[in-house]
Amino acid sequence: MDQERIGRLRRAMRAAKLDALVLRLPENLVMAMGVWPMNGYSHGLFTADEGPVLLIAPSCENEEMDGAWVREIEWFVWPRLDMDDPAEVLQRALRQAAKAHRLNRARIGYEGSFEAIAPPHNAGEVLAPCESTIAFLKSILPSARWTDATDLLHAQRAQKTASEIARLRLTHRVADFGLKRFHKAVRPGVTEAELASIVYSECLNRGVRLKGVRHVNVFPQISSGPNAHRAWRPNVSTGRRRLRDGEIALLELAVCVDGFWADVTRVAVAGRPSQVQKDAFHAVVTAQQAAMDCMKAGVPASRPHEVATKILCQAGFADDIVHLTGHGLGFRYHEPEPFLMPGNRQRLKAGHVCSVEPGLYNRAWGGIRLEDNVVVRRDGVEVLTKAPKKL
Amino acid sequence: MDQERIGRLRRAMRAAKLDALVLRLPENLVMAMGVWPMNGYSHGLFTADEGPVLLIAPSCENEEMDGAWVREIEWFVWPRLDMDDPAEVLQRALRQAAKAHRLNRARIGYEGSFEAIAPPHNAGEVLAPCESTIAFLKSILPSARWTDATDLLHAQRAQKTASEIARLRLTHRVADFGLKRFHKAVRPGVTEAELASIVYSECLNRGVRLKGVRHVNVFPQISSGPNAHRAWRPNVSTGRRRLRDGEIALLELAVCVDGFWADVTRVAVAGRPSQVQKDAFHAVVTAQQAAMDCMKAGVPASRPHEVATKILCQAGFADDIVHLTGHGLGFRYHEPEPFLMPGNRQRLKAGHVCSVEPGLYNRAWGGIRLEDNVVVRRDGVEVLTKAPKKL
Repeated sequence: MDQERIGRLRRAMRAAKLDALVLRLPENLVMAMGVWPMNGYSHGLFTADEGPVLLIAPSCENEEMDGAWVREIEWFVWPRLDMDDPAEVLQRALRQAAKAHRLNRARIGYEGSFEAIAPPHNAGEVLAPCESTIAFLKSILPSARWTDATDLLHAQRAQKTASEIARLRLTHRVADFGLKRFHKAVRPGVTEAELASIVYSECLNRGVRLKGVRHVNVFPQISSGPNAHRAWRPNVSTGRRRLRDGEIALLELAVCVDGFWADVTRVAVAGRPSQVQKDAFHAVVTAQQAAMDCMKAGVPASRPHEVATKILCQAGFADDIVHLTGHGLGFRYHEPEPFLMPGNRQRLKAGHVCSVEPGLYNRAWGGIRLEDNVVVRRDGVEVLTKAPKKL
Repeated sequence: MDQERIGRLRRAMRAAKLDALVLRLPENLVMAMGVWPMNGYSHGLFTADEGPVLLIAPSCENEEMDGAWVREIEWFVWPRLDMDDPAEVLQRALRQAAKAHRLNRARIGYEGSFEAIAPPHNAGEVLAPCESTIAFLKSILPSARWTDATDLLHAQRAQKTASEIARLRLTHRVADFGLKRFHKAVRPGVTEAELASIVYSECLNRGVRLKGVRHVNVFPQISSGPNAHRAWRPNVSTGRRRLRDGEIALLELAVCVDGFWADVTRVAVAGRPSQVQKDAFHAVVTAQQAAMDCMKAGVPASRPHEVATKILCQAGFADDIVHLTGHGLGFRYHEPEPFLMPGNRQRLKAGHVCSVEPGLYNRAWGGIRLEDNVVVRRDGVEVLTKAPKKL
């Protein structure tokens, strides 16, 4: 049980005059209840007085609920032919809990505006709490004062606890397997799809062998040659393109290990890099290091971007900078705090976890980005990504 | 442009007294606008009078928007340092379109309750239209009568058009690559993760080589040995387990090709199957064939389940039946129509696309399921899954 997390969340709820949270998104249950549900039909009740008190979960997730931070789990049979009505079970369990914890007239937070959602282990389908669920929750406890707790949850998630950072280290070990293997695989003639497959296999196969790991999800995306200059897009697209001699392959890689995420990038040239590619790579390495070196708690979130940009400009690449320098992450691929971008006057805080990803994007010679993830500390950063950087 | 789809959707909207739809989920834009957005920030406007009229999309998706069924696309720069404010662009474009199409007091449908959502190509993060988006849409056109169109959209999606079925055939060709490769890879000593990697690589590599294919997503899940008896769960979990001689591996495989989905399953034994495994497999093959043979437009959706169940029971496996026999799919991994399950009095319709997936789940010898996808026709079914069935 992560007492640091539970204590912080309870204090934040009291400050916001919130008595309870009803959570369903796997990414929030990871944080607040210590479990990563596989489907997204599990609900958790967390109170300001007592912390995590109840999970309502499908019985087929008994293994995934192992280690939950609650004394009580209300199971429902699903999705079998002899299944319960999950809505009925949820209604009964929440009403009973509301009575026991005096929540009938309480202020209860729900996940109303998580527009970006992390997929569960079976990533082909994501379950979002939409209008129907929210209306149903409100109908279960109609005299409670329901309030959208999205902002509070995102703010709480932004600073990771010691135990969460330990989990993130494990995720990044798995992501590093993929980055290292990528460098071995890039050569003239290989296709984008082949590279993505190799990275996927390496992370999955070596990841599930690590002690204590239950579930590994891998999302590799490769852009190459002339496409790489567009790799700042969130829709880097892996295709059938074969790498030619001297072309860049850019790997954008998300890895999720039991609910904890990494978002990392490496580039490699098939064959011999050109002088401009080498110069750009050197500038990006230097810019990334300088951005990391300036980061610690208290520094404005805009500074790493300014520091990186200055170096990239001095190296002659001012026209090739199109993207911000970093974003929060950890419970999801991208989280809204902190953004390392111009104009962001927020200050970095200890426990912030974010990407540091300066990049250069040029139609003539491709795209070069390095993306490592770091934990902000009082006196600097801990770099979670250990894989070497080379072109 | 799929005139059949557009005509049907317009007629359904008129019957429901809906003047327009504002759509954002990639799975609905595939159906109504002919594009599969990569991120989920694109909005589409579809009117009952004119069909697809406007897309508002990030400029980085210009390739993905190629071939859209609209005359007009309003682009916004995103997510670059020189980006627009997407909310501002959406507001301006929707207000202009509302004026041009006289929608200020119209009845407008939105995606309020799509609790299950298909991931975009970059499947590590899904964007759902939640309370904040819905409130924003309503604020843009406050005098319109906004109504949750989820049920109408699901009902329309249930019957696929000729052109959609052609796209689904392509997806199933890609899924078949994975099923065939799986059979070659199952042997004593291989891990679940290795099997999943092999299937992923085969679908991705061969899929992107097929003519006309842009994006392929692959979601393989392997359960093996004693775990396979729990493979009716939606959380089949790929792990580090090594197959032993005589054990079953069960592959649950979702494949998405440019927004069109397949959901298929095969089983294979590492080494020699036991007599009970052979008997169970034979019963499942026979039950699946009989279920398919009884299907055509007009037949109650409960009948395939009854037919399959009768055969499984006669073969002595009554205690091993825990799951329904099929579900809709096509625009997503699972769709709510038709469910092939006891008590479902709905009748099958021409153009329904669903899985036919009888299975037996037993602690002693594992789990055996076959899952093929079919199109319901007036006189029978078209089987989309062509990969052979063997143990």
